[in-house]
Amino acid sequence: MASDIVELGKRAQQAAYQIGQLGTEQKNSILKLMAEALIENTSEVLEANQKDLESAAKLPSNFVDRLTLTEERIEGIAEGLKQVAQLQDPIGNVDKAWINKAGLSIAKRRVPLGVIGIIYEARPNVTVDAAALCFKSGNAVILRGGKEALHSNLKLAEILRAVLNDNDVDINAIQIIEDTSHETAGRFMELTDYLDVLIPRGSARLIKAVVDNAKVPVIETGAGNCHVYVDDDSDKKMSADIIVNAKCQRPAVCNSMEKLLIHKNVAVEYLPYIAEKLRPYHVELRGDKETQQILGSGVKPVTEEDWYTEYNDYILAIRVVDSIDEAIAHINKYNTKHSETIITNNYQRSQQFLDQIDAAAVYVNASTRFTDGFEYGFGAEIGISTQKLHARGPMGLEELTTTKYVVRGQGQTRN
Amino acid sequence: MASDIVELGKRAQQAAYQIGQLGTEQKNSILKLMAEALIENTSEVLEANQKDLESAAKLPSNFVDRLTLTEERIEGIAEGLKQVAQLQDPIGNVDKAWINKAGLSIAKRRVPLGVIGIIYEARPNVTVDAAALCFKSGNAVILRGGKEALHSNLKLAEILRAVLNDNDVDINAIQIIEDTSHETAGRFMELTDYLDVLIPRGSARLIKAVVDNAKVPVIETGAGNCHVYVDDDSDKKMSADIIVNAKCQRPAVCNSMEKLLIHKNVAVEYLPYIAEKLRPYHVELRGDKETQQILGSGVKPVTEEDWYTEYNDYILAIRVVDSIDEAIAHINKYNTKHSETIITNNYQRSQQFLDQIDAAAVYVNASTRFTDGFEYGFGAEIGISTQKLHARGPMGLEELTTTKYVVRGQGQTRN
Repeated sequence: MASDIVELGKRAQQAAYQIGQLGTEQKNSILKLMAEALIENTSEVLEANQKDLESAAKLPSNFVDRLTLTEERIEGIAEGLKQVAQLQDPIGNVDKAWINKAGLSIAKRRVPLGVIGIIYEARPNVTVDAAALCFKSGNAVILRGGKEALHSNLKLAEILRAVLNDNDVDINAIQIIEDTSHETAGRFMELTDYLDVLIPRGSARLIKAVVDNAKVPVIETGAGNCHVYVDDDSDKKMSADIIVNAKCQRPAVCNSMEKLLIHKNVAVEYLPYIAEKLRPYHVELRGDKETQQILGSGVKPVTEEDWYTEYNDYILAIRVVDSIDEAIAHINKYNTKHSETIITNNYQRSQQFLDQIDAAAVYVNASTRFTDGFEYGFGAEIGISTQKLHARGPMGLEELTTTKYVVRGQGQTRN
Repeated sequence: MASDIVELGKRAQQAAYQIGQLGTEQKNSILKLMAEALIENTSEVLEANQKDLESAAKLPSNFVDRLTLTEERIEGIAEGLKQVAQLQDPIGNVDKAWINKAGLSIAKRRVPLGVIGIIYEARPNVTVDAAALCFKSGNAVILRGGKEALHSNLKLAEILRAVLNDNDVDINAIQIIEDTSHETAGRFMELTDYLDVLIPRGSARLIKAVVDNAKVPVIETGAGNCHVYVDDDSDKKMSADIIVNAKCQRPAVCNSMEKLLIHKNVAVEYLPYIAEKLRPYHVELRGDKETQQILGSGVKPVTEEDWYTEYNDYILAIRVVDSIDEAIAHINKYNTKHSETIITNNYQRSQQFLDQIDAAAVYVNASTRFTDGFEYGFGAEIGISTQKLHARGPMGLEELTTTKYVVRGQGQTRN
C-alpha cells in the first residue's frame, strides 16, 4: 500500500465511484466471503497479532487486552461481518419524492458519503467492523488505527482486500495508513480534497485531538457524562434498579451513568437504599453536603471538576436538588449531550424533562445503557454521535450516507 | 448589544433554551408582528441605510445595489417574514417512532440546532431573512454581516428585537456582531462552546475563508460550477431552450449553468443553433478545438482554469465529448457538486447520468436553475448546501434542525 497520504486519498476516491454502484446482493456476498476468509486465515492473523503483542508487552493490561486477538475473538469478528451482511442496505432508498409545481419529479435518494476516514486506537476488531460498515454503505474507507496494532491491522486488511480483488472490486475501497507518525495523521486530517468525513473512535482525548486539528468535517462520537434524575414522585425500587444497571452493568462505556441527581424530598429515604444496592459493585460515592449528611463518612466530597468528568469507572457523584428545574439546569450545564434519564411517576415532569433536556437521547424510567445501535434496532454502529449536525445518537448504516436529489423532467425551464 | 463575542454566545445559548420551546402559533404571530414593525419603521430603516450608503459611495455599483434599501425592498423583506410565518414548522415532528425489543417506545423528534451563526456580505435583506428562518426553526442566531451594512443591520435587528421584547421573548434570540473587525470574526468562528453551526452566505471567497478558519462545524453553501451535457440522442430545441434558460435567466446565481458538454455526433448540427439562441444575451463563448472549428473565430480558446471556474456571468465554456462516460468523468472531476443536467431521449443514459454524477441535484431534461428552495417547494431557504454532511441541496427549515431520541420506558434495564 502506498504510504503517501494524498495517493491514498486519490485511490480511495477512485474506488468510491465503483463501490457506490455495487448492488446489495454483491456487497452482502463479499461480506460473507470476508468472514470466511478471516476464519481460514486465523493462524496468519494470530501470528501478526503476536508481533504487536510482543512490542506491547510492557503496556497496561487493559490496553494489551484490547489489542489481543484470539481464535474466539476472530470468530466474533467474522460473525460481525455476517451480521453487517444481514443489515438493510440504505443505498438507493428514497427518503421522499414528489412532483413540484413545474411538473418535475423530484426524489431524495440515499447515496454513499464517498470516502470515510476512521481514526481509532489499538483495537484490531475496529479495523474490520469499520471496514464492513463503510463497505456495506458503499463508501471507501481509509483506516488509521493505533500504531501498536499495525501488524494486525495490515494483515486483516490484506485478507479483506484479497476478497475484494477476487470479486473484481477495487481493493482501495479499504486502505490502511501504514505510516503511523503524528505528521501523517495531521496531513490525513487536512485531506479535504479526498475525505468526505472523519470519524474518530476512542477516548475523549483522541476525539478532542481530532476535532481540534481536522479540517475535514468530523463527526464527534462517544463522550458520555450521563445523568439519572430521581424525581420525588418515583418508585424507589425502580430507581435503584435503573441506577445499578446504568452505573454497573458496563461502567467503561459511554452510555453508562456518571451522576445521580435526586430530589430532596426522597433523598433521605432512597439514598441509603441505593447505596446498599451499589455496595456489591464497590462503587466509590462522591457527594454534595446533603448526600454526605445522609450517607455518612463513606462519601467523598464532590468537586466542581467531578461534575464535568466522565469516569468510565465504578465511581458515582451524587447531588441532592430542590426541584426538577434545578436538575435540568444542572444537566444542561454539565452534560456531554449523550443520554439522560428521569425516574418519575409524574406525567408533567416526564414531559418537561423530555422537552427541556438537550441530549442525543432522553429517557423516562429506563437505563441510559440503552443508547446503542443494537438496542435501538439499527444493528452494528460506527459510534454514538454527540454532536447535532448530520447524525445524533447511535450511527448505523444510514448515518454513513448522504442524499442527492434525482430530478426527471420533460424539458422544463424556470420562469 | 455586548461587543464581547463570548458574551454574545452565552446570551444566545440562554435564549435558545427559551425559543426552542415556543409554540408554532406564537412564533408565527411574532413573525407577522415583525413584518408590521418593519413597515411601520420604514423611514428609520432608510435613514440608517443612508448612512451606510454614504460611506459606500465609491464602491462598485453592484455592491452598492445590494446594500441599498428602498421602500419597495423593505416591503419585500416584510413579505418574506410573512411567508416564513406560513411555512410548516418542523419542530416537534417525529421522523420515525418504534418499540424496541425491550419494550421501550423510541421516537426520533425534530428539535432546534440551538445557536446558529451566519456570516454574510453587505446585504441587509439577509439579516432579516436569516433571522426569520432561524427564529421559526427555534434557533437563536448571531449575525455577522458585512461591515458596510452595519447601520442598516443594527436598525433592522433593533426593530425585530423590540417585537421579541414586546412578546416576552428573550431578545438575544437575535443578535448582531457590532465589532466587524477580522479579529472578532476569527474568534466568532472558534466559538465552539456556544455555536452549534456556522453558515456562510455569499461569494466563494467568503465561504472558503470560513471553511478554512472555522473550528465550529460549517455548512458550506453556494459555489456552483454547473454543467449541461447534451447526449447524441436528444432534442435540439429542448437542448437550446434549457441551455439558454440555465445560462441566461439569472447568470449571477449559483444554480446557473457554466459549462456545456456536447456529444460529437450532434455538435456540428446543434452548436451553431445553440450559439444563435444565446446571441441576444451576448454570451461570451469559450471552447475546445472542436468547438472552435465548428463555431469559428468568435469562440475564445478554453483553458484548464476555465473548467474549474464559476463565472457567474454571461460566459459559457464548451467541450465536445466522445461519449457519456467522458462527460461524466469531466463533470465529476471539475464540478462543485451543485447541479448537473443531461439532455437525452435515451433511457439507459438518463439512468447512468443520475446514478454516476456526484452532485447535490442531478437532472434529466430540465434546467439547473430549479435547484432552489422555492422551486422544490420548501419555501425560503438559508442557502444551497454543496457538502455531503447534514444537508445537501436547498436548505429549508428542516435543515436548521437536528433530532433527539425521546424514549419512554416502564423501568427497563439492559441485559
